[in-house]
Amino acid sequence: MSTGSAPHHRLSDKVPRTERGRRTLRKLLDAAAIEFGERGFHEASITGITRRAGTALGSFYTYFHSKDEIFRALVSDLSGKVREAAKSALAEDHAALETERMALEAFLHFAREHKEIYRIIDEAEFVDPTSFRAHYETTASRIHARLLAGAEKGELREGLDEAHAWAIMGMNVFLGLRYAVWSEDTAPERVAELANEILRHGIAREG
Amino acid sequence: MSTGSAPHHRLSDKVPRTERGRRTLRKLLDAAAIEFGERGFHEASITGITRRAGTALGSFYTYFHSKDEIFRALVSDLSGKVREAAKSALAEDHAALETERMALEAFLHFAREHKEIYRIIDEAEFVDPTSFRAHYETTASRIHARLLAGAEKGELREGLDEAHAWAIMGMNVFLGLRYAVWSEDTAPERVAELANEILRHGIAREG
Repeated sequence: MSTGSAPHHRLSDKVPRTERGRRTLRKLLDAAAIEFGERGFHEASITGITRRAGTALGSFYTYFHSKDEIFRALVSDLSGKVREAAKSALAEDHAALETERMALEAFLHFAREHKEIYRIIDEAEFVDPTSFRAHYETTASRIHARLLAGAEKGELREGLDEAHAWAIMGMNVFLGLRYAVWSEDTAPERVAELANEILRHGIAREG
Repeated sequence: MSTGSAPHHRLSDKVPRTERGRRTLRKLLDAAAIEFGERGFHEASITGITRRAGTALGSFYTYFHSKDEIFRALVSDLSGKVREAAKSALAEDHAALETERMALEAFLHFAREHKEIYRIIDEAEFVDPTSFRAHYETTASRIHARLLAGAEKGELREGLDEAHAWAIMGMNVFLGLRYAVWSEDTAPERVAELANEILRHGIAREG
């Protein structure tokens, strides 16, 4: 779509200089998550965002030129939040497989609290393909780096490839869709444990 | 979106009575895959579809009432093609883990030849959420049934859950996105082998 190739010059790259400015930008992004999440990109409006944020229209244009631009900033913001959600699992020095279990569990909790994230990131495939691809490529790189660190520590196999990271990311994304967004019929702890079994020893009968 | 809740009364549920009719319906669906895949749902048009199909506009209305309706029929058709692509792997009586490897390899080959399938099924999340959800729920059920059959034969662990099936489906979908749609830098055989390693014995160092 044409919007996907629009130049990425973002006013929002200019960090607000004041604490008040930072709060306003935060309010706009949080309101945008709800507006885009509920109405979708095409139905969403700038006035819908400022109304939800309780800010004047002028404040919007201090930070963004257009609906496209705040959407791009929002995808980047949500991508950062996904990273931060997993970070609690990474703060302490856990065993490599335990880190993966905790990262998935944290992500599932996060996705339950922010169900709109799926709709927004998935819609980016059409509205802003560059951000969509960047989100998954950076997430996979982060997982791959963790796998290599685990191999370095002697806990994981040698030769873990980028493809292993994409496989793990895919597991996590679909478990989030099924057990955080579509239904909460199974606890995040249980889902993360079942997925972690696969990474620990596969699904073959032990023998 | 409003289109998502439109009633699912499909003319196309009436199977064409003649061989010629079946060929026309097939041509329309194949043309729709290209039209929706290239232009997206909103930009795509019925005349774009009939022009690509080389059929008269009247033929379109013999089978479908609207653009929404052929889109729904297309998602169902593609969902069936994904199932068929894996079926070659399932025709013979392979070991359970070998079946999963072959099913993924077949899917990766299929996705390379039909890259548009991702865009169409992903756009269904917005245009026709019921079909989107049905596609993944039926795919996961099929995988889960294979896992239970493998456990029954004594090859896979007991207690494999629906969550294991969703995890495997997620792996396959994201490996297809990365290694069939976005880049062909790694052979499907190699990607399927790497993913299968995870199912065979996880990613922990043996010891």
